[in-house]
Amino acid sequence: MNLQEKNKKGIELYKRAKEIIPGGTQLLSKRPEMFLPDLWPSYYQKAKGCYVWDLDGNKYLDFAYMGIGACILGYADEDINKAAKEAIDNGSMNTLNCPEEVELAELLLKIHPWAGMVRYARTGGESMAVAIRIARAYSGKDKVAFCGYHGWSDWYLSSNLANDKNLDGHLLSGLAPNGVPRGLTGTMLPFHYNKIEELEKIVSESNDIGVIVMEPMKFQADSSGFVKKVREIADKIKAVLIFDEITVGFRFNIGGSHLKLGINPDMAVFAKGISNGFPMGAIIGKKEIMQSAQTSFISSTYWTERIGPTAAIATINKMIKENVPEYLEKTGLAIKNGLAKKAEEHGVKLHIEGFPAMLHISFDYPNAQAIRTLYTQEMLKKGVLASGGIYVSLAFKEEHIKEFLEAVDEVFPILSKAIKENKVEQMLEGPIAHTSFQRLN
Amino acid sequence: MNLQEKNKKGIELYKRAKEIIPGGTQLLSKRPEMFLPDLWPSYYQKAKGCYVWDLDGNKYLDFAYMGIGACILGYADEDINKAAKEAIDNGSMNTLNCPEEVELAELLLKIHPWAGMVRYARTGGESMAVAIRIARAYSGKDKVAFCGYHGWSDWYLSSNLANDKNLDGHLLSGLAPNGVPRGLTGTMLPFHYNKIEELEKIVSESNDIGVIVMEPMKFQADSSGFVKKVREIADKIKAVLIFDEITVGFRFNIGGSHLKLGINPDMAVFAKGISNGFPMGAIIGKKEIMQSAQTSFISSTYWTERIGPTAAIATINKMIKENVPEYLEKTGLAIKNGLAKKAEEHGVKLHIEGFPAMLHISFDYPNAQAIRTLYTQEMLKKGVLASGGIYVSLAFKEEHIKEFLEAVDEVFPILSKAIKENKVEQMLEGPIAHTSFQRLN
Repeated sequence: MNLQEKNKKGIELYKRAKEIIPGGTQLLSKRPEMFLPDLWPSYYQKAKGCYVWDLDGNKYLDFAYMGIGACILGYADEDINKAAKEAIDNGSMNTLNCPEEVELAELLLKIHPWAGMVRYARTGGESMAVAIRIARAYSGKDKVAFCGYHGWSDWYLSSNLANDKNLDGHLLSGLAPNGVPRGLTGTMLPFHYNKIEELEKIVSESNDIGVIVMEPMKFQADSSGFVKKVREIADKIKAVLIFDEITVGFRFNIGGSHLKLGINPDMAVFAKGISNGFPMGAIIGKKEIMQSAQTSFISSTYWTERIGPTAAIATINKMIKENVPEYLEKTGLAIKNGLAKKAEEHGVKLHIEGFPAMLHISFDYPNAQAIRTLYTQEMLKKGVLASGGIYVSLAFKEEHIKEFLEAVDEVFPILSKAIKENKVEQMLEGPIAHTSFQRLN
Repeated sequence: MNLQEKNKKGIELYKRAKEIIPGGTQLLSKRPEMFLPDLWPSYYQKAKGCYVWDLDGNKYLDFAYMGIGACILGYADEDINKAAKEAIDNGSMNTLNCPEEVELAELLLKIHPWAGMVRYARTGGESMAVAIRIARAYSGKDKVAFCGYHGWSDWYLSSNLANDKNLDGHLLSGLAPNGVPRGLTGTMLPFHYNKIEELEKIVSESNDIGVIVMEPMKFQADSSGFVKKVREIADKIKAVLIFDEITVGFRFNIGGSHLKLGINPDMAVFAKGISNGFPMGAIIGKKEIMQSAQTSFISSTYWTERIGPTAAIATINKMIKENVPEYLEKTGLAIKNGLAKKAEEHGVKLHIEGFPAMLHISFDYPNAQAIRTLYTQEMLKKGVLASGGIYVSLAFKEEHIKEFLEAVDEVFPILSKAIKENKVEQMLEGPIAHTSFQRLN
């Protein structure tokens, strides 16, 4: 089977895209080069449940990222779509405000009793920028200690102005923060997950940290009470503690993952988890902190449209009603176990990390990325989108796990043989997938 | 008629909103206090064409801001809604990319032949932040000379760090930029529309201006070739010239208003004008400048969803097909003339400024804002949303202009009498409308 021929329309459109869109896509994680350079279908015409139809009419099972984590309930979920379409029929924008933004605020505050107020944006990056603005306005201090990835905005990327290795291990290695004003140099201080000594060092050397921001959990488990210690440090230095729940919120439990940890921040930010693919972001926080929004200017027209909060209300209510996080855990565990079994059967050294609802997989070989590329290539031929992660969805039913594992059962022997015969690179029909940010031509 | 009783549900919900949403709304221009404090309906349940139904079931004609300028084609336009709902049915988010983002790029580049590449965001403020990032990355310089309003982001609000009057006349008077890092002080240099000498002074005193940003037109006409002179200065100092077309683009003509002026920028930004109320933003620019996006990290999940570009394609194509800008001009002119005639007939001193498609009205009296509030109050009683501006829409037909002017015909005598008898404030059933940013309790 010739992938070039099979994915002809998608491959051609992406070539054109790179001529008129710098970097080809709007999101690094959706770049075809991150999956299977030159051969990835790249575009879809239709999606339903966990299936995707590309421009060439090929049908795929998406056991990769399910909308880069944004579609926990599956693609085109009937209930959420119905709510969104009703909002559209009734006018999704107006001179007056939509009542759904108050209803959603009530719902988020009910789930997070520690919080007292809510603001909205429409993307994750923007929501984080709003949160940082409010936290800085409240604390009166500019410096932020951070752990993990928090978007593309100036406040975050400025991390690399002082030292181009500051974002290593958080975002991408050696990223040049071009276009970020140099005046922000020194405002961002990095620490790593589970390394409390790094944060301790930061606060011992700097007495003007106003904000601490982190993802409370992601691929690693909290060890020796790390997050609790961060909370204690924040209290001690009177810093605003922000939890970025954009990727993890509502995936492991109803609400922020901090509820599972039993540790409350001062503010939390949600986006991808709450609206099943419709643009939405929410910033929640303690009342006295959130009121600082009123001492700054934080205002945008599209933050007032109706689809975002409508979809969020429908999504959260469905997640509660069907206990989706429990289903994701059970399903993710079945996938993890099935995959581990196949790896063992076929003698493929596979690492599976992360929580069941959001698995990260890697091949334990020196040429790991070439093998991962070959895996993606061969799974694609079997009709499955597969890469270095599996974002579990409510749309994953038993038959889909079976379909996935059957494909794996055919592909792992190919990998195993190629690895043994040292022919992985030779078997690739295109270049090895990128692992980082690269300039595209 | 008791407005408190008539708008009961909306008034009560807004009271609750202020307890759980700092500032009550997500957009300053949608604050009830900006229209009619304590009595404004505040929320809508349904909107169609230029009519709005509030929570209490009252029906209003919207001759105010039509979604704060975001609904040029009218509320719930059948054609755009159909396209958006199809995108939803076919899955509006995916692991693969949506082909509509390439199609929209082709369309924007066809309309703006000076531009070579396109990026997207989902709100206007975010789109401006992307544009500034790319322009700074290209120029290698941090300083920006600016004119007008460009959103809530750090790069823009930092204008007031050096001098809290820098944003006077651009955004709002005396705004404290709380939460904006002090390291950005001095990066923003303001100049006013039609005052080329101010920009000349900036560039004569500073040799490190990398970017000039402005709205090419808004309420004032370009006098003595102001915009052309800005273009010449940008060329001379090799600064990237960005036109913010968020409010004005596609309103006066198909494409950016700069096409009407005959002056091309290096980059242009669109949002509210292009997608009839669905969150969308587009940044277009010359190829060599836009490619600088690849030297920075500019990436966000929701920028990849499908509804925004789908709605934009449908909106732009409809605007072309029906020559909407011409209709807006003709209609706006009829409203302007009708309103001026009524003012004269009833002896009300009224200023009507701006281009016909986007009228700004003010009362020429010392207590102008009290009179404007009374106008809003009395028009509301007649079933019309009215304020200090009229954003003309394709949904405005002859019968709506007639309906509006009949209400004006009944309200202007009330104003005229109140002004003569010095009873304006006395006749207000609530406080005078806010004209600026104020903390709400």
